[in-house]
Amino acid sequence: MHPFVETSEIRVPDALIDQVLGQHEARDIIRQAAMQRRHVLLIGVPGTGKSLLGQAMAELTKVEQPEDILVFPNPEAPHQPSVRRVLAGHGQAQKAAHQTRAYRANESLRMLIWVVVVAIVLVSVYFAVRDQALTYLIGGGIGVALVLWLRRYMLASPTVSIPKLLVQHPAEHAPFVDATGLHAGALLGDVRHDPYQSGGVETPPHHLVEAGAIHRAHGGVLYIDEVSLLGLDAQHHLLTAMQERQFAITGRSPGSSGTMVHTSPVPCDFTLVLAGNIEDLEHLHPALRSRIRGYGYEIYTHESMADTEENQWLMARLVAQEVRRDGKIPHSSAAGVQAVVEAARQRCGQPGKLSCRFRELGGLIRIAGDIAIREGAQLITAAHVQRALTWSLPIEEQMLPTAPQRDENL
Amino acid sequence: MHPFVETSEIRVPDALIDQVLGQHEARDIIRQAAMQRRHVLLIGVPGTGKSLLGQAMAELTKVEQPEDILVFPNPEAPHQPSVRRVLAGHGQAQKAAHQTRAYRANESLRMLIWVVVVAIVLVSVYFAVRDQALTYLIGGGIGVALVLWLRRYMLASPTVSIPKLLVQHPAEHAPFVDATGLHAGALLGDVRHDPYQSGGVETPPHHLVEAGAIHRAHGGVLYIDEVSLLGLDAQHHLLTAMQERQFAITGRSPGSSGTMVHTSPVPCDFTLVLAGNIEDLEHLHPALRSRIRGYGYEIYTHESMADTEENQWLMARLVAQEVRRDGKIPHSSAAGVQAVVEAARQRCGQPGKLSCRFRELGGLIRIAGDIAIREGAQLITAAHVQRALTWSLPIEEQMLPTAPQRDENL
Repeated sequence: MHPFVETSEIRVPDALIDQVLGQHEARDIIRQAAMQRRHVLLIGVPGTGKSLLGQAMAELTKVEQPEDILVFPNPEAPHQPSVRRVLAGHGQAQKAAHQTRAYRANESLRMLIWVVVVAIVLVSVYFAVRDQALTYLIGGGIGVALVLWLRRYMLASPTVSIPKLLVQHPAEHAPFVDATGLHAGALLGDVRHDPYQSGGVETPPHHLVEAGAIHRAHGGVLYIDEVSLLGLDAQHHLLTAMQERQFAITGRSPGSSGTMVHTSPVPCDFTLVLAGNIEDLEHLHPALRSRIRGYGYEIYTHESMADTEENQWLMARLVAQEVRRDGKIPHSSAAGVQAVVEAARQRCGQPGKLSCRFRELGGLIRIAGDIAIREGAQLITAAHVQRALTWSLPIEEQMLPTAPQRDENL
Repeated sequence: MHPFVETSEIRVPDALIDQVLGQHEARDIIRQAAMQRRHVLLIGVPGTGKSLLGQAMAELTKVEQPEDILVFPNPEAPHQPSVRRVLAGHGQAQKAAHQTRAYRANESLRMLIWVVVVAIVLVSVYFAVRDQALTYLIGGGIGVALVLWLRRYMLASPTVSIPKLLVQHPAEHAPFVDATGLHAGALLGDVRHDPYQSGGVETPPHHLVEAGAIHRAHGGVLYIDEVSLLGLDAQHHLLTAMQERQFAITGRSPGSSGTMVHTSPVPCDFTLVLAGNIEDLEHLHPALRSRIRGYGYEIYTHESMADTEENQWLMARLVAQEVRRDGKIPHSSAAGVQAVVEAARQRCGQPGKLSCRFRELGGLIRIAGDIAIREGAQLITAAHVQRALTWSLPIEEQMLPTAPQRDENL
């Protein structure tokens, strides 16, 4: 292990992929998959760094042509709004241009109507005064009333023709979208319900269209953890979206007026990173898994690593990373790191191995840090980590009668 | 045990955290979690003090920058009201300022319209009298009618531009919000349904926005008991809110016009205290639990404590606390407390232990107190507690044929 006195001396790499600990092979595969834009299936116990691998992949993904996606009204078929792609950053400008044009056209029409009204009034008053006849005034009044009544049909709400900015992509980096546990509408896009669907008070259908996670991940990474929470139906749609690289949006709540709206296909060229436990594999649609096997990589994230000097050094880096990320706890002494390494040894349960459940170890480090803060200590010491060990036991172990005495009053 | 004659001599601490009985370790962890603003999962049988632990945590939480949250109309996109934060206490003032401005502008316009109306009437009457012609009067009448008809378009309702005070935070202490059993709309915020959405009679969308429990808990503690009542969907939204520390409000009832409204993100930086029984653990979203394990504490609240002198003294304090909190029953004698301790011993069912189901014990004390009041006694005695024991049997035990005789007339 490189010598150090406290973890503040340890440099944490900036790139997410270099912050991945313990999973050397997974790291290399993710690098390669990001370069070639391949799908990835990550299987392993919780807290071994699957989510970090997914985020790192998005960071490594090159965006060649970032796009914004706009949805326009379709005058021929109002319930089939049309979708257009523009270069990233141009979406807002296009929308604003349409907005200005619509408001200006509206303003001109409004002005024209007032000119007509004033003209009718002047002409009828002139003739009424000249001929001393009431008839002209009554005729003029009827004319004005007619124009004003027609006005509300002619002045359509200006929003009708303004496109909606469906997805706004960042220009610099590929998007990372976490779609874990989303219901079908949020994953695949949805069209909201409009209770007033006629009579001039309805919202134009294209304004009701909402992008799904698959569309927001266009050009980047779509990360779905706990794949067992995804229904077979949603998995099938996901498979279609992966194959076609575009997916039309329609209303997904039964009984909603949105089900009548169906957009033209919306681009969704994402790289899928599916994550889960080994049990989740059973709930995976065979066609989806087959597609990943055919067009991507399957990675098993290890739950332990060899107890070598190099890996003990990784543990020190883990402590430094967690302290920096948390921001509320102090750095750790070398002895504190040794205690964390010892905890990783014991949590693993196999001789000569260290646990790779980094989220749990992160929790342990944070609790040790909290104890250090409460005691006003400048550094996390081995004693703090030992105290944290009993305070970080899962409920299930706290309930056991053999649980270590945490409370002397029991 | 400290000597005492009656429980009125026993001082009850003011701080909620010091009123927690029996759960020493839980108390220490809550102190630490409040200091570092960590999430907490409390698991244990009902009545062991989980809710008190949550309230104590809110009391201990320091508010660094309390904020009020206002929602403003968005003239460009009326269905996307914008949300702004101001320092706590300034929300009401901002709203009042907007109110005054809107009413003043309205007043000026109203005055102008009446000036115009009076001018038209005077001019037409003058010309009618001078020329002895009725036509001028009719023309003037039409002019007045036109102005009054236009008036209702020009005088928009002043509420349109007034912001709504969404969340008003106390400046002195952190909020404690109990969100147990709330449906999604009340938990995550909702937009009410407006049956009139046009024609000038609609309510402006930003006035329909309602904050959820997560927003009201901003800066404080969100307490959710019986986590199994929360659907997987709601748990996932909760997880998102925890991670992002902000959560946009949209209508959550299908078929409501509120689903078309979607605010800008509303801050919700809360500390989550989830409570439940051991069976509830199964219904907990794995990602939510994993997040708490990684970024907080898991606490098991014990259902029994050792039968020591110190813990018997805690029982005396429990009696004193319950008497003071109830306010309708007299204090207890030392013998009455001894009878309660004996009941705690028997309820526990294990030798050498005392029950920690403090809510049940509190019920016993209240029943004993009621009996003492009925008998006009100055203090709760051991005899009162013994009578209360048969009167506080749960229904299930009352049904048993072996139940102790409660009514000598049977």
